[in-house]
Amino acid sequence: MQDSPLWEQIGTGFVRHYYQLFQNDRAKLADLYIAESLLTWEGEKICGKDAITKKLLNLGIKKIGHTITAHDHQPTTDSCILSMVVGQLKADNDQIMGFHQIFLLKEINSAWVCTNEMFRLALHNFA
Amino acid sequence: MQDSPLWEQIGTGFVRHYYQLFQNDRAKLADLYIAESLLTWEGEKICGKDAITKKLLNLGIKKIGHTITAHDHQPTTDSCILSMVVGQLKADNDQIMGFHQIFLLKEINSAWVCTNEMFRLALHNFA
Repeated sequence: MQDSPLWEQIGTGFVRHYYQLFQNDRAKLADLYIAESLLTWEGEKICGKDAITKKLLNLGIKKIGHTITAHDHQPTTDSCILSMVVGQLKADNDQIMGFHQIFLLKEINSAWVCTNEMFRLALHNFA
Repeated sequence: MQDSPLWEQIGTGFVRHYYQLFQNDRAKLADLYIAESLLTWEGEKICGKDAITKKLLNLGIKKIGHTITAHDHQPTTDSCILSMVVGQLKADNDQIMGFHQIFLLKEINSAWVCTNEMFRLALHNFA
């Protein structure tokens, strides 16, 4: 971990922090967003820290557990960090489902915030 | 389609173009990248247009078909477009597999290029 590039350490740290908060103290996720942040959650578009926080607090899920299968990170040409997570989650008594989530992180006033986030369950039509 | 925002039209058009080329004329994918482009393919990090093109041409796959389950797009604070694809693919005679892929698009000299891309098969440990 100490030998990995800084952007990889920051991306990895963000991902760990995000899912810890999501599972244990979801209201604190608000600190990760700014007024310009965008979230696309299962195709629904949500703009801004307040609306994003409200959405994440009102998913109709009491207990959720995430297992991260893989996480990848890259620096961008605009000095941001792009992170992609592939994993599985278990929400309340539902069956285990695959999910796909990405984050674009930007440093603003010496803090890394999430400007862009997308989430999709890996549900396909197995016709 | 005509009523959707420009960034959504560009992202949607890029995704359609990418998979068409991937299936029919993979060498032409080179036109989508620049010297600074980064690709993370199943965790392997590849830098630059030439190395990325070489990787995509040497996957050991002759025939591939993609089915896109969902694609989402967002503008970023740096005037880029972030796109996320969830889908299924069939490579040669392998079984159908889920995949996750993301693209960060940037306008350079009036052309949209891919500066960042990540790909993962949706393979979890179903222990």
